[in-house]
Amino acid sequence: MTQGPRLTPLAESLPASVPFVGPETQERDRGHPFIARLGANESLFGPAPSVIEAMANAASETWKYGDAQSWNLRVALADHLGVGMDHIMVGEGIDGLLGYLVRLTVGQGDRVVTSQGAYPTFNYHVAGFGGELVTVPYRDDHEDPDALIAKAREVDAKLVYIANPDNPMGTWHDAARMQAMIDAVPDGTLLVLDEAYLEFAPEGTAPAIDPDDPRVIRMRTFSKAYGMAGARVGYAIGAKPLITAFHKIRNHFGMARVSQAGAVAALADQDYLAEVQAKVTVARGRIAEIAAENGLATLPSATNFVAIDCGADGDFARRVLSELIARDIFVRMPFAAPQDRCIRVSVGDPADLDAFAAALPDALAAARNA
Amino acid sequence: MTQGPRLTPLAESLPASVPFVGPETQERDRGHPFIARLGANESLFGPAPSVIEAMANAASETWKYGDAQSWNLRVALADHLGVGMDHIMVGEGIDGLLGYLVRLTVGQGDRVVTSQGAYPTFNYHVAGFGGELVTVPYRDDHEDPDALIAKAREVDAKLVYIANPDNPMGTWHDAARMQAMIDAVPDGTLLVLDEAYLEFAPEGTAPAIDPDDPRVIRMRTFSKAYGMAGARVGYAIGAKPLITAFHKIRNHFGMARVSQAGAVAALADQDYLAEVQAKVTVARGRIAEIAAENGLATLPSATNFVAIDCGADGDFARRVLSELIARDIFVRMPFAAPQDRCIRVSVGDPADLDAFAAALPDALAAARNA
Repeated sequence: MTQGPRLTPLAESLPASVPFVGPETQERDRGHPFIARLGANESLFGPAPSVIEAMANAASETWKYGDAQSWNLRVALADHLGVGMDHIMVGEGIDGLLGYLVRLTVGQGDRVVTSQGAYPTFNYHVAGFGGELVTVPYRDDHEDPDALIAKAREVDAKLVYIANPDNPMGTWHDAARMQAMIDAVPDGTLLVLDEAYLEFAPEGTAPAIDPDDPRVIRMRTFSKAYGMAGARVGYAIGAKPLITAFHKIRNHFGMARVSQAGAVAALADQDYLAEVQAKVTVARGRIAEIAAENGLATLPSATNFVAIDCGADGDFARRVLSELIARDIFVRMPFAAPQDRCIRVSVGDPADLDAFAAALPDALAAARNA
Repeated sequence: MTQGPRLTPLAESLPASVPFVGPETQERDRGHPFIARLGANESLFGPAPSVIEAMANAASETWKYGDAQSWNLRVALADHLGVGMDHIMVGEGIDGLLGYLVRLTVGQGDRVVTSQGAYPTFNYHVAGFGGELVTVPYRDDHEDPDALIAKAREVDAKLVYIANPDNPMGTWHDAARMQAMIDAVPDGTLLVLDEAYLEFAPEGTAPAIDPDDPRVIRMRTFSKAYGMAGARVGYAIGAKPLITAFHKIRNHFGMARVSQAGAVAALADQDYLAEVQAKVTVARGRIAEIAAENGLATLPSATNFVAIDCGADGDFARRVLSELIARDIFVRMPFAAPQDRCIRVSVGDPADLDAFAAALPDALAAARNA
């Protein structure tokens, strides 16, 4: 018998890590389902009926490969955003686009800057291409643009990542602060501005798009506000040379055809988006109420989730989390201290949040008695 | 203004190449649609009604991320194939899986062996990770297992690729020949056996699956016989250590949820698959008839397409191809001589093939008069 395949030294060195354990995986491990799926910041309000209809109609055309240029979607996005379609790259979710971006820019030993405890899937891609991750701490539960830029300058970073609004904390900076960050990006560094949750943020959160600015690439998605996490449609907005570079390595026929059709329909249904935004605002308030009823504070949120401060350290919050999971409530929490004193609860409809409200007092009591 | 992002030297060196220009792209360039879509080996017979129904039903659940483990699909595949589910990796089409596999195994300067004119998307991935492609010629319009293995041994290849049945020629080897190839794989080389078209081949084409054999990884898909090209569902079958390695780099939440649901339904509907297989057999015969009516020979095919020998050189076949496209018939052709004396026509229903039959005589005449 031969020795089998030889992995690259880099691949050999990587752990078989999973940035997140999916809820279905947890359900199989537990042997029974969750009663409230509040851990992955999915939109429990679902996609628009118009999206469901568009996807159902497109199902019969699934014998065709998706359009390799995602032309109709890019035309619609260009119109929606007021930028030329050559500034837009559609890809397999922000996760997929982040993978392509890291592959384009990060080689073995290249430095990349992010916040300690920020989006782990980005870090996974950086590690996966041999990059060296350098982190700065959060500041008052916000990502810290000044510290990120200073560190990027110090280590000559290829990329510096920030999510605005932030995941996992839900906090945000206003457009002026973010524009100042863009203006401070060092030569040779690219700012990755992840705006996955932007549609839940107040007006004035996103800096104006300057499509030719080579210092920043922005990532947005249909997974969150548009309720299409399972469709895998994200998009990047950036200067043409960078957007064009994706064509060198992307999976040209990687987009599912039904997903393309669904995203076009979603973008056209801004009334439904407004309904979701209103429901999210109500649900954020409800989560804050539930927390307060249990003597806990919440962080302000510009996203579809709320960080609840469990009032002690990370070990205590991890106990609360596992007690909630034991009570069939799927939630997650920040990975790094001191943000890991919180648990992160996605908004849901009243029934989901009632289930959470019912479980939380017992979960807290059990965590305190452990 | 700053200089913008710095690509890696490898990314900088890559062309913004597209392995294939999609039919929608061509339609936009032409300004009007094709009347017969016979170029991408899609299944014009479509997915099963049961698949369309499953996908339509799953659309309302598209707010959930797909199951990161594709558990239900892998259970169904394991049952169908008679192997353990830990030997199966589901991914975003064979294209996506080939990208992951090349990334795992091929670093700068590593050698990879394939046939001159074989699947360009595989070559695209090899180039994209800095590999050095080494080719051997076809032999009598078949891929040449002996030459591939000899070359792999000679250059100490990380990977050696073969498609059986072959694309773009449609020819095939029997299971004994393929098993002999597997048994001859050199130490340290992995055989990539692309069986995308297997469901169209005679019984006895695929060698038995030995799931623990570390010398070979097999790639299969729902894009062809199951009529789901636009859903992006492929799978790899291999030894556990190699399958596990995919977890190090894959996009864990990269599968569309509707596509997972559709693939499970497709696999359960083997009656529909048998209908498609029967229609493909009839359509291959019809393409051969059309060719014969025009004085042209066809190659035997174990796929859902037929290579028509245009009877002269590559320049002539390229003229025939462009004359067909000018007559709104989307077809493609092999890239390398002498196989590029042929055009490649996907099977279709009678109306599609009638449109092809109507256009071919004029296209040939125009090509001869050019």
